[in-house]
Amino acid sequence: MASNSFGKIFRITTWGESHGKAVGVVIDGCPAGLNISEEEINQQLALRAPGKNPFTSPRNEEDRAEIYSGVFEGKTTGAPISIIIPNKDADSSKYESIKDLLRPGHANYTYLKKYGIFDHRGGGRASARETACRVAAGAIAKKFLEKEGIFLLAYIKEIGNIQATVDHSKLQQNPQLISQNILFCPDERATKEMIAKIEAARNAQDSLGGVVELLIDNHLAGLGDPIYEKMEANLAAAMMSIPASKGFEMGAGFMAASMSGAAHNDAFVCQGNEIRTSTNHAGGTLGGITNGMPLIARIAFKPTSSIMKPQETVDKKGEPATLQFPEGSRHDPCVAIRAVPVVEAMAALVIADSLLFNRCCCLER
Amino acid sequence: MASNSFGKIFRITTWGESHGKAVGVVIDGCPAGLNISEEEINQQLALRAPGKNPFTSPRNEEDRAEIYSGVFEGKTTGAPISIIIPNKDADSSKYESIKDLLRPGHANYTYLKKYGIFDHRGGGRASARETACRVAAGAIAKKFLEKEGIFLLAYIKEIGNIQATVDHSKLQQNPQLISQNILFCPDERATKEMIAKIEAARNAQDSLGGVVELLIDNHLAGLGDPIYEKMEANLAAAMMSIPASKGFEMGAGFMAASMSGAAHNDAFVCQGNEIRTSTNHAGGTLGGITNGMPLIARIAFKPTSSIMKPQETVDKKGEPATLQFPEGSRHDPCVAIRAVPVVEAMAALVIADSLLFNRCCCLER
Amino acid sequence: MASNSFGKIFRITTWGESHGKAVGVVIDGCPAGLNISEEEINQQLALRAPGKNPFTSPRNEEDRAEIYSGVFEGKTTGAPISIIIPNKDADSSKYESIKDLLRPGHANYTYLKKYGIFDHRGGGRASARETACRVAAGAIAKKFLEKEGIFLLAYIKEIGNIQATVDHSKLQQNPQLISQNILFCPDERATKEMIAKIEAARNAQDSLGGVVELLIDNHLAGLGDPIYEKMEANLAAAMMSIPASKGFEMGAGFMAASMSGAAHNDAFVCQGNEIRTSTNHAGGTLGGITNGMPLIARIAFKPTSSIMKPQETVDKKGEPATLQFPEGSRHDPCVAIRAVPVVEAMAALVIADSLLFNRCCCLER
Amino acid sequence: MASNSFGKIFRITTWGESHGKAVGVVIDGCPAGLNISEEEINQQLALRAPGKNPFTSPRNEEDRAEIYSGVFEGKTTGAPISIIIPNKDADSSKYESIKDLLRPGHANYTYLKKYGIFDHRGGGRASARETACRVAAGAIAKKFLEKEGIFLLAYIKEIGNIQATVDHSKLQQNPQLISQNILFCPDERATKEMIAKIEAARNAQDSLGGVVELLIDNHLAGLGDPIYEKMEANLAAAMMSIPASKGFEMGAGFMAASMSGAAHNDAFVCQGNEIRTSTNHAGGTLGGITNGMPLIARIAFKPTSSIMKPQETVDKKGEPATLQFPEGSRHDPCVAIRAVPVVEAMAALVIADSLLFNRCCCLER
Repeated sequence: MASNSFGKIFRITTWGESHGKAVGVVIDGCPAGLNISEEEINQQLALRAPGKNPFTSPRNEEDRAEIYSGVFEGKTTGAPISIIIPNKDADSSKYESIKDLLRPGHANYTYLKKYGIFDHRGGGRASARETACRVAAGAIAKKFLEKEGIFLLAYIKEIGNIQATVDHSKLQQNPQLISQNILFCPDERATKEMIAKIEAARNAQDSLGGVVELLIDNHLAGLGDPIYEKMEANLAAAMMSIPASKGFEMGAGFMAASMSGAAHNDAFVCQGNEIRTSTNHAGGTLGGITNGMPLIARIAFKPTSSIMKPQETVDKKGEPATLQFPEGSRHDPCVAIRAVPVVEAMAALVIADSLLFNRCCCLER
Repeated sequence: MASNSFGKIFRITTWGESHGKAVGVVIDGCPAGLNISEEEINQQLALRAPGKNPFTSPRNEEDRAEIYSGVFEGKTTGAPISIIIPNKDADSSKYESIKDLLRPGHANYTYLKKYGIFDHRGGGRASARETACRVAAGAIAKKFLEKEGIFLLAYIKEIGNIQATVDHSKLQQNPQLISQNILFCPDERATKEMIAKIEAARNAQDSLGGVVELLIDNHLAGLGDPIYEKMEANLAAAMMSIPASKGFEMGAGFMAASMSGAAHNDAFVCQGNEIRTSTNHAGGTLGGITNGMPLIARIAFKPTSSIMKPQETVDKKGEPATLQFPEGSRHDPCVAIRAVPVVEAMAALVIADSLLFNRCCCLER
Repeated sequence: MASNSFGKIFRITTWGESHGKAVGVVIDGCPAGLNISEEEINQQLALRAPGKNPFTSPRNEEDRAEIYSGVFEGKTTGAPISIIIPNKDADSSKYESIKDLLRPGHANYTYLKKYGIFDHRGGGRASARETACRVAAGAIAKKFLEKEGIFLLAYIKEIGNIQATVDHSKLQQNPQLISQNILFCPDERATKEMIAKIEAARNAQDSLGGVVELLIDNHLAGLGDPIYEKMEANLAAAMMSIPASKGFEMGAGFMAASMSGAAHNDAFVCQGNEIRTSTNHAGGTLGGITNGMPLIARIAFKPTSSIMKPQETVDKKGEPATLQFPEGSRHDPCVAIRAVPVVEAMAALVIADSLLFNRCCCLER
Repeated sequence: MASNSFGKIFRITTWGESHGKAVGVVIDGCPAGLNISEEEINQQLALRAPGKNPFTSPRNEEDRAEIYSGVFEGKTTGAPISIIIPNKDADSSKYESIKDLLRPGHANYTYLKKYGIFDHRGGGRASARETACRVAAGAIAKKFLEKEGIFLLAYIKEIGNIQATVDHSKLQQNPQLISQNILFCPDERATKEMIAKIEAARNAQDSLGGVVELLIDNHLAGLGDPIYEKMEANLAAAMMSIPASKGFEMGAGFMAASMSGAAHNDAFVCQGNEIRTSTNHAGGTLGGITNGMPLIARIAFKPTSSIMKPQETVDKKGEPATLQFPEGSRHDPCVAIRAVPVVEAMAALVIADSLLFNRCCCLER
């Protein structure tokens, strides 16, 4: 079953706990001949890093990925690529006092029920620390996508009920607008309002949820596979595997449920020599296979579960208790922000896999 | 890659085109010793069948599943269970006139781009006919879940912007309320309004979208697997693989994105000897593993793509054309209705798989 | 786990019991655009058919495969190909008297221990009848290999201690020598001796084992994948999954264990513009990847377990009993003969899979 | 496809090249609650280590495995177990002079053909160094098997045509006879003769092949899965994935091909309350499922390909050349010896996987 692996041909396996020696990822199936460097991976990790801005938790992790295998003279060899990211800042003692309490919104109860044992230090395997491995692997998948000329970008679409206005063509011309924005948000005005909301939530010892949007373009029609490996099914599984995600939609998404067919159907048109659709309510797939239009998806993230406000709960034995994180605990006020590079990474893995599998669908290729 | 298979241990493989001889499913990994009969499968198929009511397309398919293998003296043997459902009502000639037109919202363009060949008759492999196989396999998964005492039900939550009011505990006592309702909807008042909307859409040669809700209960805490086989990730992939699905959410779902942590977190409480949560915004999972609370998910379906209203499009060569389905074409005015038993079937497959894999997670079992 | 499936990209799933309605196979991942017909499949089935000659059991099965899906206007579409082979000649009553006896060399005891239930009629799922599905699927894989110009042939190498002398280049020019020989043996003189031995065994109510050799040529260097998907590992799994197989070897095989390195190493030489080896003790792979030399493997088959001679055994309860097959029971005196087309089919599946996966190993392809 | 992974539920993924920073393995699916320590892993690695005796190459690797994840307070947690074994002794410069030559019996040519790039240092990914990871993972699988009371042992059966005489019941009482013997051989007399042969081969700048035998006992009947996951198929794939293996057989193996059915069939008998067979030509399986008798298999290993004797070959461009390993190169005179713990490890992985999957085969478990 391999619940720590993702992907079929371009396949990753991640390992490691929040407060263990390291976390890491093994990438199996990356095509040989791709130029990659630790520096490129670390640039991606820096985006995800906590402490990057006042709205992510202020740990000085400064993740440094090391490539342990699969790269020779700067190029992938076809052998598995092992990447290890040491855990630098792991003081578990602080949590000792609350280790027997069930934490609302957390996985410590469910892991314990499942396995009868839980490495509670820093959230153990259930910690979002694992997503660093996804970002590292995604950095390599992105290099592959770049070679294929594919555009892929994720950004904050909504925080605390504030919607960002997004101009896709502008983003395609200036993708760095996102990495330069403190919230990974393409709308300057909305950013300011979001910041105010986040600060208010933090002052109230509370947290906020958000929505991340994903935009993929310049890929071929024909990616994704019918029935159970539909592009939207694989993207959905990828996104719903990210900690704190609660919803996924493609194109018009849940809005489509209240539209009529005449309004929702995207008319086919011929632009130059290319077949396109005049609208894109579908979000880029028909029958699970890309139609050449931009892939557009949105992922909902719940508000951060760890909040400084005291919370009623019970302990492992079912006795009532109050959960109060120790003074100085570090939690993101809005996990959706740090999820942006993780969404990108997971999307890159899905697309890389579909590109490779697509090589096998016809007799001549 | 096996894009026509779903599940890991309890695994199905479906085959067949809309207008071929038959469609079918092979179920591998169903535990030995389960009582099953063709009759039970056919009861499930009858729910999904078109022609059941005025709001699904009026074909007289009357699907009859036949079990070809894997059952001996009424019990599963551990061998693969092959189920075949003959295609009875398959007149392809009617579509001959439009076979070279790209159909808005349909997969004929994308299949053609992917494979260079497309069996256009009745939608070929891309037809929702394939979902009959899921329902047949789901009928067997449901028998397994019943043995484990698990409750599982799907129903219409919304059509044409009309929301059904749902009382979960009432549904658990009277699940037949759903199968007896013409729209699989638990709310009588909403049903009437929905019917009016559907009739209006049909009169306007148009169609409607809808939302299906899924409710699972009486299962153990500990189902689902960390990281990439999270319960919500597998449910999302299952649901987003259903034709016309555009969105998936668990618990509070997209609403969670606009909530605060203090409001969203479900407090742990002790009820009798059981640990429960006082609310269920999470929808039954924490960290991808069930916490013992009801699993609640919603799936958005787009409006039926095939509408009688003429639509502008292009043909395979890119020449402008008008798509007009021939008089007497049969299309559901709202595909969400027939999706209800499919959602149930896919959910049953996910839960069956998680139950079996859960047997392997600890040393003693 | 899917124990009834074989292959990764070109993947088959078989189903059916000896005395059920039919046996069948679903092929997922066959590239679109391949010409196939039922006739071609049935030609392959005819080779395997019992009753073909006096040395296979005289049932008049006359298998007729029907293609139920995945082929449109004579070409594969990329959709799963479902092939069904009805069971025509299934009289289970004859075995009623011995159904509670453990049959030496048979799987009825082990299936019962595993599943607690066993469909004993004709051997149920454990019957070699299942191999008809492999041959049907292999017929399609062979068509794919033909398009790639690959030569693939299996034949009897040894029966009853009589070794056939084989001239590989002659076989490559006249592969029909095998299908025309009553024992699928390339050596006329050995054939006669083998026939005498088989007749003697049958007269003695006994049976014989044999060795099948496999020869694959005209394929590219670079097929197969390092570490756990080595060409020899996948061929070994394929062959050891065939009923009655007891051993597998590549190239010099077990003989290599008694050679010295200097004698065993195949020297690289340049012939024309091609790199070849002067000998082929390796049997065509180095490090699990083809080196362009012929792939040569041998598979050992045990003597048929079902013999007319009375055998001491016990019943399900452990009580001593004598197993005596009823008069007129039909058993091959040497299962290795009918295994020849099965070996070919399994080898074709392995090579087809490796060809497709090989498309994914490099950046440019 | 994941060619660097092995197993379905108890699944390993290995990574690393001979002369990179480290090699490692990730184990996914090990049940929670198993006691393991680095010390136990290192004991197993010590058996495999080169330099252990004069007949393995004299490098002072002294492998030290480190557990990086998945273990908490001495117990497995259900999270993936990452084990890393640093490469200590990696001087690649010595091979610089021969890096462009195709090495007879080696994979440098085939990797180059497949990937267009090859990390030639010390054999790169194709080096037997990778098997250290298998031994480390196998150490954990063995702990699981011990808990289940299963006996598992491999040993040298033949080297240089000298056969060891083996008394299975004596070995089961004193398994340490194997680890204490310099050649892992149970027969003292044969050991002496083998040593003489090995020394002679080394003096002649040559090498020898050998046969390893595997013995598994005290397991339940019912392990292994029908059709394509047969116990013998999975063992064969496991063994044929070990570098230098050329053949695999179960029970009577290739000998079975020259036996008659009456001689080969193992009669069922009742011993006490247990059903056994009076002989064990089958080697412990019927229809791919264990029958409770000892599992017995043999694996043939070719002679070491790297020999000091000069060998004719060509370079990458096809130009004739002589391969002469530099003075002081270190190669095992007989790789079969070091393969013994690798055979054990791979067998333990197969059995562990089958034990877990067996939990899923019936309704009640």
